[in-house]
Amino acid sequence: MAAMGALLKFGALLLAAVAACVAWEDGDVWDYDGHKLKDSDFLALWPLPQKVQSSAVSFQLSASRFQFTHAEGSSAGSDCSILQNAFRRYFDYIFGFTKKDRDQRRRNAAGSEVLELQVAITSPDAECDGFPSLTSDESYELSVDQPSAVLKAPKVWGALRGLETFSQLVYEDAYGARNINKTGVSDFPRFAHRGVLLDSSRHYLPLKVILANLEAMAMNKYNVFHWHISDDQSFPYVSRMFPDLSQKGSYHPYTHVYTPADVKMVIEFARMRGIRVIAEFDTPGHTQSWGFGQKDLLTPCYTGSSPSGTYGPVNPILNTTYDFMAGFFKEISTVFPDAYVHLGGDEVDFSCWKSNPDIQKFMDQQGFGKDYSKLESFYIQRLLDIVSSTDKGYMVWQEVFDNGVKLKMDTLIHVWKGNEAQYQAEMARVTGAGYRTLLSTPWYLNRISYGQDWRDAYKADPCNFTGTDAQKKLVIGGEACLWGEYVDASNLTPRLWPRASAVAERLWSDQGVRDISDAYVRLVQHRCRMVERGIPAEPLFTGYCRHEYSGV
Amino acid sequence: MAAMGALLKFGALLLAAVAACVAWEDGDVWDYDGHKLKDSDFLALWPLPQKVQSSAVSFQLSASRFQFTHAEGSSAGSDCSILQNAFRRYFDYIFGFTKKDRDQRRRNAAGSEVLELQVAITSPDAECDGFPSLTSDESYELSVDQPSAVLKAPKVWGALRGLETFSQLVYEDAYGARNINKTGVSDFPRFAHRGVLLDSSRHYLPLKVILANLEAMAMNKYNVFHWHISDDQSFPYVSRMFPDLSQKGSYHPYTHVYTPADVKMVIEFARMRGIRVIAEFDTPGHTQSWGFGQKDLLTPCYTGSSPSGTYGPVNPILNTTYDFMAGFFKEISTVFPDAYVHLGGDEVDFSCWKSNPDIQKFMDQQGFGKDYSKLESFYIQRLLDIVSSTDKGYMVWQEVFDNGVKLKMDTLIHVWKGNEAQYQAEMARVTGAGYRTLLSTPWYLNRISYGQDWRDAYKADPCNFTGTDAQKKLVIGGEACLWGEYVDASNLTPRLWPRASAVAERLWSDQGVRDISDAYVRLVQHRCRMVERGIPAEPLFTGYCRHEYSGV
Repeated sequence: MAAMGALLKFGALLLAAVAACVAWEDGDVWDYDGHKLKDSDFLALWPLPQKVQSSAVSFQLSASRFQFTHAEGSSAGSDCSILQNAFRRYFDYIFGFTKKDRDQRRRNAAGSEVLELQVAITSPDAECDGFPSLTSDESYELSVDQPSAVLKAPKVWGALRGLETFSQLVYEDAYGARNINKTGVSDFPRFAHRGVLLDSSRHYLPLKVILANLEAMAMNKYNVFHWHISDDQSFPYVSRMFPDLSQKGSYHPYTHVYTPADVKMVIEFARMRGIRVIAEFDTPGHTQSWGFGQKDLLTPCYTGSSPSGTYGPVNPILNTTYDFMAGFFKEISTVFPDAYVHLGGDEVDFSCWKSNPDIQKFMDQQGFGKDYSKLESFYIQRLLDIVSSTDKGYMVWQEVFDNGVKLKMDTLIHVWKGNEAQYQAEMARVTGAGYRTLLSTPWYLNRISYGQDWRDAYKADPCNFTGTDAQKKLVIGGEACLWGEYVDASNLTPRLWPRASAVAERLWSDQGVRDISDAYVRLVQHRCRMVERGIPAEPLFTGYCRHEYSGV
Repeated sequence: MAAMGALLKFGALLLAAVAACVAWEDGDVWDYDGHKLKDSDFLALWPLPQKVQSSAVSFQLSASRFQFTHAEGSSAGSDCSILQNAFRRYFDYIFGFTKKDRDQRRRNAAGSEVLELQVAITSPDAECDGFPSLTSDESYELSVDQPSAVLKAPKVWGALRGLETFSQLVYEDAYGARNINKTGVSDFPRFAHRGVLLDSSRHYLPLKVILANLEAMAMNKYNVFHWHISDDQSFPYVSRMFPDLSQKGSYHPYTHVYTPADVKMVIEFARMRGIRVIAEFDTPGHTQSWGFGQKDLLTPCYTGSSPSGTYGPVNPILNTTYDFMAGFFKEISTVFPDAYVHLGGDEVDFSCWKSNPDIQKFMDQQGFGKDYSKLESFYIQRLLDIVSSTDKGYMVWQEVFDNGVKLKMDTLIHVWKGNEAQYQAEMARVTGAGYRTLLSTPWYLNRISYGQDWRDAYKADPCNFTGTDAQKKLVIGGEACLWGEYVDASNLTPRLWPRASAVAERLWSDQGVRDISDAYVRLVQHRCRMVERGIPAEPLFTGYCRHEYSGV
């Protein structure tokens, strides 16, 4: 460390106002003598901040003396539960369970010690009691010096990101003492929407697993939990208005459901970490489980001229369907505070609709001919109108756009299909039509293969498509998806982490941060840090962590 | 259950003396009316026993009254620690933590209750204080009736397998009461060697993880833990005679080593479950970590005419090498009680040997020309002589056979290379030369892919090669291998289970047990049973267990 010298990373910061996909100056890192440095010369920062100035000057941190404080003039004080909660969390991360230092009575002889991190929220409204949103300001500036380090952020959301960075800068010296180097960081996310999708329908995920993953998301500066809560297999969401949905449609009505209190807990736990919770209630396909608790909601399939006893997608020709949806999404709009709800709309199988004579008659009346995608659009259109009336924005899977449904311009189109060329073409089409979009195709982390497949996730970039600057500005980010067919509490966390960390850096850091061998060095350390913090993230390759996972 | 009627599975038992690979009568299951039944009509027995007679007659089991007892005339009594230990384990598995039943005072009105399982060890030497071996008798007969069930086995090893089967027959009725049906089971393993390889060198595996996996192995009737304890990456085995090997060659000399006490604990924990511990100390390749603690053991590599500072395989031309090996394997022969030690011998890279002028001179002296496999054989030959002098048998990877090393006829050749056609040809060659062999190629479970890859493992069969009956008799079994490059405590257990269960059934059950959809139904239940017993086995597909895993 002593020989490292002072580092300066620049380029990105000057262009903070430019959209994430627009190319800018080289984001490489240089020392004061003009030598190009690798990102891993920094401590194991993950995702890499936009700008870091480091130096070899190190300070100590004492568990018995160090404090997080609210800076004078900060718009947040000790009544700001988000910050107070984060202070406790990061104190634990930094000092572990060794609250009592041996050096409690004597100061470091050298006297170089960071005694506090002053947190200053600089805008008048810190948003301590708010929810994070697509437009939340997550920027921060961190200056580590003695005796006081200073973290400045316009809002608490940036302060949360800065606290994570601060904790990542702390390292143990050979004697186990906590050290931190004189450092300056200016940071902000490249993309506003950085999400992880978990699927609680294919397998029920105990609350413990969801909370642990929110914890891990915060360590990776993710800010959206996309909760794919229902699907064909089960409906675990306990609706106050339609309790039969989970009573009859969950794997078990008491042990495999999310009660209103559970949902509240997830949302608040996420809010404390600057993470939005966007619920997805996917319709009209992927709804088999809804049918058990809501009569006539699904389309009866026919064999010849009589009902076969099986059911297809939501029945789009009955008024009762829309009455139900209006009631249901009104509830959802109050339960989930986020401004967006994800309405799904993917993979609608037309075979059941085709078999049903009432549907056929309706198709004729509407003049849809044999084009069932028109019927799908008919349904989605009415659903969007219903959801709009609850003052929510919506996200939809790409098929809704592909099928030509008329969408409000604030709709977010979620791209998930195809190979690289296909998803890039889709990103071009969606943004060409003026819609904002986010990418998931290369980040279906449920798909596994032998070896270091995090590299592929790391290499993908949501801006790699042919389009104008104006189009690129419409890319709001992406999501790592862990569909639930083959994961549950037994294997979810190590399968997701640190593979989702690769996506996290792609979505947070400068577009120019792409050196895979440098990323490897930092990610190995970041993974060990997650393990040390209790997240059983799997190893990237051979080796060991000083603190190994102690579970089974 | 009531409509199931009495079932009878036959065929296999009559041919118990015939080697596992030789085809025999159809092992299908029939009821008394001649209807063919699926295996899954039995309870979730895994691996499926050779012969099961079931009936709809059910009995209750009460936690407050049920006992395991030593049958009159059994050669094992309450001083048999293997059985006493197993009784406690299976009592817990069967009754969970609800030791006190509500029905403690009143008997079931119907009076049909199994009050005890009498365990009778029928041969004069129960082997209570012995170690399991390649020739251990693991057969057992189980008769479940009221008021007493009876488990007969020649040795404790069969009793352990029978206790597992007994515990698998117990099910909960709708009221949570424990039930078991009138059942007869005659069972024995198809193969004598049914192993799991874990690699504690690429990543150190905490003792807890090894013990948990021994526990899971017993649930699947595995009987060999192949401990690939050292490799290039680290040498965690603490040698009494050569302590520097781990002191300098482990990831950390205190936190990432197996002490003599640790090794003893693993061996005893395994013995209690009828599992052999076969240690592998792989040489002459895969030995980088040995070089740190044993001077001159590895071959110095050269660049041109001077040493490059790097090292290759074990140096086969120095007498000190063989002195070391003699001392080392003498220790190993006393530390590991099993009659076999695995000597490795795979993947020797000749480039370093080729670069070294002393090696070249030695090659000339020996008349090896440029054939470095002759040098490899020279080394292996001397190593085998050393190990033979310790009265141990040895297992080797297939290369040792492929390179024409002269082997004792009791050598076990471990096949691991190639595609299906290639490993089948190798099995034919090895057995054609009269050697016993075991298969691992299709069971490299470290290799993962998306979806239900347990099916491929399940479909493979070690007897599928062209050869005579005499050759087939030389197949002693196989091993599921979980190489450690990408697994450690964070993800090992769910990655291995229940995929290794598929291999377990292939190695235990009748060759005719191959119905994949039937296996699916039973394996789903078996996996949930493992989860309930504390093993985080991953899910096969969508769905749920009544008792979900509660970890993260």
